Amino acid sequence: MGMKQLRALVLQTAILAAIPTVTLAQSVLSKAERTSESMEPALVHSDQALAAQAKLDALQTKFGRKPNIVWLVVDDMGYGDPGAFGGGAAVGAATPNMDRLAAEGLKLTSTYSQATCTPTRSAILTGRLPVRTGLTRPILAGDKITRNPWSDETSLPKILGEAGYKTILSGKWHVGESEGMRPHDIGFDEFYGFYEAEKEISQGVDKRRYPDLVLNPERLAMLKATGSSDALVHGFKGGVTSDVEVIDSIEKMAEGDRLTKEFTVAKIKELASGTAPFFLEHCFMKVHADNFASKEFEGKSASKYPYKDDVVEVDSYVGQIVKALDEAGVLDNTFVFVTSDNGPQLDTWPDAGYTPFRGAKGSAWEGGVRVPGIAYWRGTIKPGRQSDELFDLMDLFNTSLHLAGSLDKIPSDRYIDGIDQTSFLLADDGRSNREKVYIWNEQDFMAMRMYEYKMHLKIVQEHAQWLNIDMTTVSDVGLAPWLFNLYIDPKEQYPVGHRMNAFLASMAAEMKGHAATFKKYPPKNIGLGQ
Amino acid sequence: MGMKQLRALVLQTAILAAIPTVTLAQSVLSKAERTSESMEPALVHSDQALAAQAKLDALQTKFGRKPNIVWLVVDDMGYGDPGAFGGGAAVGAATPNMDRLAAEGLKLTSTYSQATCTPTRSAILTGRLPVRTGLTRPILAGDKITRNPWSDETSLPKILGEAGYKTILSGKWHVGESEGMRPHDIGFDEFYGFYEAEKEISQGVDKRRYPDLVLNPERLAMLKATGSSDALVHGFKGGVTSDVEVIDSIEKMAEGDRLTKEFTVAKIKELASGTAPFFLEHCFMKVHADNFASKEFEGKSASKYPYKDDVVEVDSYVGQIVKALDEAGVLDNTFVFVTSDNGPQLDTWPDAGYTPFRGAKGSAWEGGVRVPGIAYWRGTIKPGRQSDELFDLMDLFNTSLHLAGSLDKIPSDRYIDGIDQTSFLLADDGRSNREKVYIWNEQDFMAMRMYEYKMHLKIVQEHAQWLNIDMTTVSDVGLAPWLFNLYIDPKEQYPVGHRMNAFLASMAAEMKGHAATFKKYPPKNIGLGQ
Repeated sequence: MGMKQLRALVLQTAILAAIPTVTLAQSVLSKAERTSESMEPALVHSDQALAAQAKLDALQTKFGRKPNIVWLVVDDMGYGDPGAFGGGAAVGAATPNMDRLAAEGLKLTSTYSQATCTPTRSAILTGRLPVRTGLTRPILAGDKITRNPWSDETSLPKILGEAGYKTILSGKWHVGESEGMRPHDIGFDEFYGFYEAEKEISQGVDKRRYPDLVLNPERLAMLKATGSSDALVHGFKGGVTSDVEVIDSIEKMAEGDRLTKEFTVAKIKELASGTAPFFLEHCFMKVHADNFASKEFEGKSASKYPYKDDVVEVDSYVGQIVKALDEAGVLDNTFVFVTSDNGPQLDTWPDAGYTPFRGAKGSAWEGGVRVPGIAYWRGTIKPGRQSDELFDLMDLFNTSLHLAGSLDKIPSDRYIDGIDQTSFLLADDGRSNREKVYIWNEQDFMAMRMYEYKMHLKIVQEHAQWLNIDMTTVSDVGLAPWLFNLYIDPKEQYPVGHRMNAFLASMAAEMKGHAATFKKYPPKNIGLGQ
Repeated sequence: MGMKQLRALVLQTAILAAIPTVTLAQSVLSKAERTSESMEPALVHSDQALAAQAKLDALQTKFGRKPNIVWLVVDDMGYGDPGAFGGGAAVGAATPNMDRLAAEGLKLTSTYSQATCTPTRSAILTGRLPVRTGLTRPILAGDKITRNPWSDETSLPKILGEAGYKTILSGKWHVGESEGMRPHDIGFDEFYGFYEAEKEISQGVDKRRYPDLVLNPERLAMLKATGSSDALVHGFKGGVTSDVEVIDSIEKMAEGDRLTKEFTVAKIKELASGTAPFFLEHCFMKVHADNFASKEFEGKSASKYPYKDDVVEVDSYVGQIVKALDEAGVLDNTFVFVTSDNGPQLDTWPDAGYTPFRGAKGSAWEGGVRVPGIAYWRGTIKPGRQSDELFDLMDLFNTSLHLAGSLDKIPSDRYIDGIDQTSFLLADDGRSNREKVYIWNEQDFMAMRMYEYKMHLKIVQEHAQWLNIDMTTVSDVGLAPWLFNLYIDPKEQYPVGHRMNAFLASMAAEMKGHAATFKKYPPKNIGLGQ
């Protein structure tokens, strides 16, 4: 048994040991059906599946090609930032474009991400939990990755490309920048954007925020020696990769999202004039710290703070990208999804978003993993829909493959955590096909949401009055798992486990079932902390 | 100097002493104009005032009478309960009717109430802060009020009645039940409802929640001896007052709001067929604890909890009352305002509402005093409007008098804290006429909101992990007032006073100016704790 297998076994055992020893082996609460050993069980709604397929068939007849797929992923935006989710003007930054898409599409109030950036970004492209791909935490400058996680992952753009799609990633990547791990290495035809998060670049240029780095030549040299790219990059599959522009000032950083937006808008025009359908993932650098108001948007929010101006900027670009789809004549044949990669990063406050929930980015509390979710498809998704049923961002993997007619290309030799939510999103009265969301923090299986209940096996505890990432610890729960009813307690303050012990046992059985998937499909270790 | 004057003087001194000793006597931050010693200064927007008046004039020409005024006041509903404010289906109780009114009217995301029930209900009928009327806290069963506060107050229904309006209060009163303090004693033509809060009645009937009272004959007798009414009452100005039904069971309590809704719907039909305009204040008993699901609505919310079912019930009745206005042909000539009397009462959880903010009912934190506010007037208030500018529920007093053409009847021998917001609400791009909201807790001047800033002189501190009323204390601030920027910190977690000391001084000057109004217009003492 190699080191990898040993580690995996230890991990499995730790996971299983963490499940409370309940005698009930089977959940009485579940209605999900398992169709394959390697696929997450799903709720089956046959009627709505037929209704959704009828819509897709009609589109195929009308347009003669598969639909385009566009994801708009904001960085670190809080659940409470868009107006449609309770923020907007009420928190000093109006978001009319996102609000309009929510009002004219499907507003998903229980959309779940991973707790941090790299994990979410890799999970939605593989349909697999970070603990399975090894990408369990943000890749940081200087990290030594011992094994390319992508070498044996099958990415969404790879499958879509084989199905005839053009595939583009515009904006932030942050899932590896060495050869073999870049967007155009793992399946995308083209990449135009940044390898790093905003803060990793600004640490080398912002002398007011990081004087200890920027004004100290020796320290700055150490920073540069980590080797991470601080450039806007343009790369092509199997072809040239070049720096478009090195970001060596705050002013340049501030304009980063404008540049990738301009690329995206131009690319949409080009793609729309071609014969192939396209998959475009546009990832904003903003509103991740450090936020710098771009020239056009400085002071444009009611609040005037850079974070808020940047929310307004991102919202404007969301509107412009959707408008570009419309003007290119492809909006009616394009599935659009708007979301954030995780909760707000509160320890950079006031450069921080807003969540009404407990916790923040990096935690298993709702504040860390519950994000805005908007599914928009003019003419296909009925306007004015809203649902609080579960949607995991990993479901974008399966759903996109369904839209592309490539569900049969989902690999069966590994576990897929995503679920096909096509019928939920497209049928006029669609219900979610997902029954449970599993919440991980790196190697720890923390919690599970099931219907309106959420059960924690491990708790993220804050050790400062309001900082929510850096000064936290992970603790095992004491006497029993912490169970919350999110309808009556959205802020996870009042554990109700002992008043609902039938569900406690059932939910523990569900969690055990999830942990058991790691027996046949062991976690992968790429050197990020396992 | 009598006892009253002495107390008032002590109080004034205490208030002034509480203001930090800043050298700046004048605020550089304010743009509000004082037009009268006895009126709260207001922001002047001449153009929108003309636009609003043109709308009112056109309505007068069209309908030949003054507009009707309908207030729908929910009890203890949290800011986060209606879907339009971030709750609804996302917290297990969909509110399609309130959401529709918000979408087709003006959604006010910075609407302020008093921190508790009696204070808000009296303040909106007098345009005066509770500390001025003496009604500084909820009247409780057994309270000995030493002086009828209404004897020298001029209530809104009194002025409107003199202006030719029919005036009705349907539902909860809770501002005194002894003769001289009842709705039909203080100006309303007719009262159909309950004197008490829901919990004060259910304490005598709910043996599962209050076995120590209900199952103990001696204790129950003590409860009855407090003399408060547990009946649905029907009273007429200067005429008969009778009990319609004694509430002696949970089942009867559960139907209370249905009965007052039926009265209101029938009354609207009757009033609409008459020649006089009307002022109808409909106050729900729900969703104040204790909530009992009525027969029709039991289990009708996604959550199934009584609180949530009752939110659904109240929302349905809001829809039915507006529909009754429409069917009676008067909706286009009726100003409708929907709100809650204070934040959610969290220490009765899970019979409790949801606020995304800090604190709860009874506190000066946003959770206590920031409530949903919806202004709806078909054909007159432009649909789809939203504003985060300030609205104090006391502004309903002045605004209603403007609508009735009776602004000149506002008493000038006492201080009026309300502001005429007619132009804010009616002009298509109306801005708020209010610059500041003063937040009191009984005799304590706690805090002030001005633009997006909020400054606390005294702090409500919770002494239990999550209970937010009963286990709190009021503390003076330490080195300096606590100043929060609510755009970047909606949860009031990060004081920014020392980073904004120009505003600290200006805001302190504004608070001092407010306190100074008590010199000429002393507080009133009615025996509720001064």
